[in-house]
Amino acid sequence: MQSYQMAQGVTDNTISLMLGHPDPTTLLTPELQTAINRVLASPKPYQSLQYGAEQGTPGLIDYLVAKINREQASSINSDQLILVAGSTQAVDMIARLFTEPGDAVIVEAPSYVDALHVFYDHGVELYSSPMDENGLIPEDLEKLLKRLQAGGKPPRLLYTIPNFHNPTGFSLCLERRNEIAQLAERYKFMIVEDDVYRDLIFEGTTPPSFLTLSGETMSIGSFSKTLAPGLRLGWLAGPSEIIERILHCGTIEMGGGANPFTAQIVAEYCYLQYWEQHIHYLQQLYCGRRDIMMAALDQYMPRNITWTRPSGGFFVWVTLPENIQARDVKQQAFERGVLVSSGEGFFVNPTQGEHNLRLTYSFAQPEEIKVGVRILGEIVRKLANFAR
Amino acid sequence: MQSYQMAQGVTDNTISLMLGHPDPTTLLTPELQTAINRVLASPKPYQSLQYGAEQGTPGLIDYLVAKINREQASSINSDQLILVAGSTQAVDMIARLFTEPGDAVIVEAPSYVDALHVFYDHGVELYSSPMDENGLIPEDLEKLLKRLQAGGKPPRLLYTIPNFHNPTGFSLCLERRNEIAQLAERYKFMIVEDDVYRDLIFEGTTPPSFLTLSGETMSIGSFSKTLAPGLRLGWLAGPSEIIERILHCGTIEMGGGANPFTAQIVAEYCYLQYWEQHIHYLQQLYCGRRDIMMAALDQYMPRNITWTRPSGGFFVWVTLPENIQARDVKQQAFERGVLVSSGEGFFVNPTQGEHNLRLTYSFAQPEEIKVGVRILGEIVRKLANFAR
Repeated sequence: MQSYQMAQGVTDNTISLMLGHPDPTTLLTPELQTAINRVLASPKPYQSLQYGAEQGTPGLIDYLVAKINREQASSINSDQLILVAGSTQAVDMIARLFTEPGDAVIVEAPSYVDALHVFYDHGVELYSSPMDENGLIPEDLEKLLKRLQAGGKPPRLLYTIPNFHNPTGFSLCLERRNEIAQLAERYKFMIVEDDVYRDLIFEGTTPPSFLTLSGETMSIGSFSKTLAPGLRLGWLAGPSEIIERILHCGTIEMGGGANPFTAQIVAEYCYLQYWEQHIHYLQQLYCGRRDIMMAALDQYMPRNITWTRPSGGFFVWVTLPENIQARDVKQQAFERGVLVSSGEGFFVNPTQGEHNLRLTYSFAQPEEIKVGVRILGEIVRKLANFAR
Repeated sequence: MQSYQMAQGVTDNTISLMLGHPDPTTLLTPELQTAINRVLASPKPYQSLQYGAEQGTPGLIDYLVAKINREQASSINSDQLILVAGSTQAVDMIARLFTEPGDAVIVEAPSYVDALHVFYDHGVELYSSPMDENGLIPEDLEKLLKRLQAGGKPPRLLYTIPNFHNPTGFSLCLERRNEIAQLAERYKFMIVEDDVYRDLIFEGTTPPSFLTLSGETMSIGSFSKTLAPGLRLGWLAGPSEIIERILHCGTIEMGGGANPFTAQIVAEYCYLQYWEQHIHYLQQLYCGRRDIMMAALDQYMPRNITWTRPSGGFFVWVTLPENIQARDVKQQAFERGVLVSSGEGFFVNPTQGEHNLRLTYSFAQPEEIKVGVRILGEIVRKLANFAR
């Protein structure tokens, strides 16, 4: 989520290459309407309006467990998955229940700005480890682990976005996944895998998740990117004893399971096999948007600007030359009606992001992407001339 | 929320006098169906399926602010209220953002078991202050405040349920509200007012809320008791600077405002003035249930058992003689298919609740209430004879 006021501005003439929101035209499909109507016409529709089962709507749990096991040739059990009110609730519960203020948590450099914010709200100390086009670099991670251990502060968690990373668009290769899983065992930290973009793959194959590679994993999924964020629904999978601890925490005992009404709708939607079709549609849609953004960047950006080419997800990470500040680009773009994120907030040490922009192609329509990138290109050229 | 497994058992022959759930027959009304259909047929229905405004669906905020100001002759502004995913999210956010582990928080003796659990999950230290039939006792509260201050641990928060208290059913009188508001100012703590039963009044009048009596208040409301818990929707009102801090916390920035889809449905429902009618209906329904439970207790309980007579809400607090343990009653009732809560969990010091039961009349149907109380009466008599 970024500023609603900014998001609202989009409905006028603003172009948002900032929001990690799904395309608004994909949200209310006839299939989702069908699922809603079926829930309302079901024999006991009021059940989904009551407090819900702590673990979440049973039919949806079973569906998700079966999907994970089918797609990843894994064998997780139904007591290893809990529904949550979006990945937000998962990150928040993990921080609340499995860290203490002052604990060390490792994140990628860069990482998802809002997740960093949730961890900071819980008073943990964040340390970051660098990544390249193949994701988090195990050698550097181990150096950090040794340093933290020597300093008497072994980390509790590693928060990672292994697929179509936010903000870089990179994915972690299989070899490194295995190396990092070994590090988790050796250095005794849990891997928190934020895998909400996994299904939005455009080409190639996605390596197995940490969930299936390491018993030390809490893996987060979501319906926000592949169905509708307004339903506030996701899941958290991991060792059964971790799920059991979460099931008996205060917020679950007080409020019950995650969003029973929308979970019942999503359960119905999945049961009818609509979700699989929709994911396939979104893969093609966003792949086309990615290509449009790539072509526009090729066309409009000067040669000394580089950017990533994601194989899935929502994000492109742009690197500007040292003499251009990302915040200047962001400000001038804003004045011309184009919203982008500058890189500072994605880093534990914000200066690392001074020359980066994150662009998204998920929310803007094709023509907006072209116009937005053209305007960014003009701004960058002007700033480069000025800096010369 | 209590155990779902237990709740599910109710659909068979189990009688639940344990669950603080609304009557299941009240949840899916034709009016709520109308609101859902209107949202789906609205010009931009997909908006409620996208990430929502941080503060929540604007129309619903305006409605709630107007309702509070109309009913309490107050003048809160729209920047003083934020929608939340049920009172659970409000308590959790308050604990996360406004306490540190080890901080002192004061609660009533007894208090709402699940809220205590949420506070414990955040590592705060709970202290309790006694109440009587007029609610929390200011003199005792001040003694505790002095003791905590002298011990170098002034409390950050007082968590109180001023109306139709859970678990006792008592309400706090106006005079004491004013005294406690003065204590909040003098001893510099925030009042966290859990006011989710306020609208479920059967007789008499409800004094003004702390929200309107003290600037040091965070006041929690909910649609869970007066509409449907499965929608997961409530609100938090308080000083604008507190709301502003919450608006910029990590979970709101990450996930956006509270449950946009269900909030839009509830906004529509309220806009059509259905909620006011429904509240009026529920007042009469639950008043009738209260009367049925009172009559059954009169008929079936031995003379040395006492209980409260709530003027609203869901709860009756039963006091057993010293020679009967509440947990024995709970266990024997469970074996006979009647679910009740024993008092221990409602206290910071559980031994204080060894001779108390909490009964609810909100979820069970009239005949079930009679049968359930008759069985409880038989168990209590048997245990009393055994103890003699």
